[in-house]
Amino acid sequence: MNDDIIVAIATSRLEAAISIIRLSGKDCIAFVQAFFTGKIMDKASHTITYGFIKDGNEKIDEVLVNIYRGHKTFTGEEMVEINCHGGIFITQKVLNLCLKKGARMAEHGEFSKRAFLNGRIDLSQAEAISDLISAKNDYASQLALKGIQGNISHFIEDLKEDLIQIITQIEVNIDYPEYEDVEELTAQSLLPRSVQLQEKMNHIIDSSKNVHLLKDGISTVIIGKPNVGKSSLLNALLDEDKAIVTDIAGTTRDIVEGTIRLDHIVLNMIDTAGIRDTDDIVENIGVHKSKELIHQADLVLLVLDGSQPLTREDQELLELSKDTQRIIVINKKDQGQINDIDGIEISAKNHDIEPLIQKIKEMFELGKITSSQDDILANARQIQLLERANQSLKNAITAMEQSIPTDLIVTDLYDSWESLKEILGERAKEDLLDELFKRFCIGK
Amino acid sequence: MNDDIIVAIATSRLEAAISIIRLSGKDCIAFVQAFFTGKIMDKASHTITYGFIKDGNEKIDEVLVNIYRGHKTFTGEEMVEINCHGGIFITQKVLNLCLKKGARMAEHGEFSKRAFLNGRIDLSQAEAISDLISAKNDYASQLALKGIQGNISHFIEDLKEDLIQIITQIEVNIDYPEYEDVEELTAQSLLPRSVQLQEKMNHIIDSSKNVHLLKDGISTVIIGKPNVGKSSLLNALLDEDKAIVTDIAGTTRDIVEGTIRLDHIVLNMIDTAGIRDTDDIVENIGVHKSKELIHQADLVLLVLDGSQPLTREDQELLELSKDTQRIIVINKKDQGQINDIDGIEISAKNHDIEPLIQKIKEMFELGKITSSQDDILANARQIQLLERANQSLKNAITAMEQSIPTDLIVTDLYDSWESLKEILGERAKEDLLDELFKRFCIGK
Repeated sequence: MNDDIIVAIATSRLEAAISIIRLSGKDCIAFVQAFFTGKIMDKASHTITYGFIKDGNEKIDEVLVNIYRGHKTFTGEEMVEINCHGGIFITQKVLNLCLKKGARMAEHGEFSKRAFLNGRIDLSQAEAISDLISAKNDYASQLALKGIQGNISHFIEDLKEDLIQIITQIEVNIDYPEYEDVEELTAQSLLPRSVQLQEKMNHIIDSSKNVHLLKDGISTVIIGKPNVGKSSLLNALLDEDKAIVTDIAGTTRDIVEGTIRLDHIVLNMIDTAGIRDTDDIVENIGVHKSKELIHQADLVLLVLDGSQPLTREDQELLELSKDTQRIIVINKKDQGQINDIDGIEISAKNHDIEPLIQKIKEMFELGKITSSQDDILANARQIQLLERANQSLKNAITAMEQSIPTDLIVTDLYDSWESLKEILGERAKEDLLDELFKRFCIGK
Repeated sequence: MNDDIIVAIATSRLEAAISIIRLSGKDCIAFVQAFFTGKIMDKASHTITYGFIKDGNEKIDEVLVNIYRGHKTFTGEEMVEINCHGGIFITQKVLNLCLKKGARMAEHGEFSKRAFLNGRIDLSQAEAISDLISAKNDYASQLALKGIQGNISHFIEDLKEDLIQIITQIEVNIDYPEYEDVEELTAQSLLPRSVQLQEKMNHIIDSSKNVHLLKDGISTVIIGKPNVGKSSLLNALLDEDKAIVTDIAGTTRDIVEGTIRLDHIVLNMIDTAGIRDTDDIVENIGVHKSKELIHQADLVLLVLDGSQPLTREDQELLELSKDTQRIIVINKKDQGQINDIDGIEISAKNHDIEPLIQKIKEMFELGKITSSQDDILANARQIQLLERANQSLKNAITAMEQSIPTDLIVTDLYDSWESLKEILGERAKEDLLDELFKRFCIGK
């Protein structure tokens, strides 16, 4: 528990009507009272007071001050928000005064971190706040808002409860084997409920992964030998884009070079530079790099020229991409198809690509996913942990099936349980926390 | 008086911890209550309520709602501020809901305009709010804050009071010439107090102009025939710059091409492109353009080559700039001076320009101006109006000196009085108001 007062500008630092300077920490109302002319010491929590911020005799700004008492605040500590005029200079001046008077500049996410450390929110809720702020569409914002309300916490707690019941049954059996009225436990008798739990986990993992493709976009690579029409396909796809996309720095992965929106689907095109500049991706970057790209992508569009016989290069790319989520695109259908490869026929040149778009939508079953689905994890960290919990459970189930003694099985179940706890930050290490909260906005 | 509810995002539109959506208008608390889960209808003014913004059954965001009742609000109307999560998408979504529910998007400055129309602030205070937000230094922010507190209103009211007393004396004399106990008025007897008032106005105009040079910078042009060392001087001045200047779009006049800070003085260099690109301003742009530049500038640095005899071109520039605030700079002092022109000797090449900097500081008497000076107007509009008031008063004084009948003098005094009123917006036309408030931030 930190007693020092932290301060940050909680609004963005461009000229606007209002800026908010946020403070949190023990006695921070008294701290602000020392340089604020309005009377806030005796005011109730959740009230707004008008006055001036003063540095000695010099008035700095005319402001409204919001105060939050007790522990039912965002951070779980006493808080103050100074609503000042939203100029860059004047906001900085008020902030500087707070620092001069002894507050400490908050680190990224430190307000949320304090909320977490003070038990106001768990880790999944903290992540949801950050997600809501960076949300770029309805899916993302709805998902994040559910996370803020503790939705993830609830269904993870349910999974933990299921798991601990299985563990408890085993423990009772180990500790009190003499109790005859305790259900005689064999590994076999634990199987049904373990399998049921695993199905639950699988379902959450699958839905979460699909929703993330919706939320963050499907990283897509177009591959093909030279002159099959990769750049024509890219142009045709760009032409289908239903929205003007404003790229905001830092919102997409570094390798993403363009975003195409097809209704609710967002394709994040990767390594399109190779296509645009030379139309010669394989020749220029080699098979090794192609492999890498294919491995990174959620979707591979392998373009073949339907009007020409397949070459060794085509075969190589077909082989390379065979275990990926790929669509074989037979281009130049306007010139007739002479090879017998099964694929989606298009004419990129004529912008005749509707069958491809339909195929993409089908592939990701996007019609089936709605934001009203509840048991969705928020990010890769959470998904990875649930996969780990699932793997441990799977190990336990395999052991049960082989009728291995229950006291050996229990170790795997404990591992699974630990992974579940980690999703909510219950066993989070300090450095993980720092890593997480660093990604937050200052002032959050 | 408008009854419709206006809405705007009052914070800037970049990702941050918090955004504020501001509403103003009759019954806007009830308006927000219709889509907010917290109970605000019975809450007192200046309180903060937690809850969710909902569109039908769909929760949009978790927010804090500030309410302001009655007429003691910023706009003089009932107001609500929704503090939502500061994501760009989520903020826009809450705004869209407000619009969907029937609020109208506020125009630039419309909140301040309502404050003005509802008599909460006068025009000089409204301008001061805008000035505070765009303030880039202490002078500007201090001046603006005084304006917000009604400082300008106070001293303009004082001037109006002085003037109306003079007018009243005349009117009484005109209307009741038979009253013998009324002081027998001749134009002569009005002179002392009129002259005193004019001195007050002159003082305010002069101080205001000087402070504005401090606040906004001194627009400075360097002129001289080719090869006298204009670009060396520019480089030497740039080298003296004490601060790293972050240019923010739209903060300086269009023609300003660079800013040099010398302690508290800011030089806004104009038309330096001519210097940098060709070192040949007169030859390239001609005497006509030089005249224009000289006319625009607050400070003209006329550079002569001390090591060479004066040419016809030098003489022409000396003549052109003789009625401006100019400094004659004798460059190349390291090569000895052969002409006898009086000027500041420097060697730009050797960065030996300290005498010039001292001269600039002296010229603008910047040491004498402090931000604690009270009677300072905020902008060119106000200064122009006070100059107009002053001119009308001057006409009246001339008439008094010529013992013109008082009933003819009074017209000039009324003109003066109207100009003073206009500073505070008391006679402002609708289109002037629109023009003024358009420059404000949305949400202000």
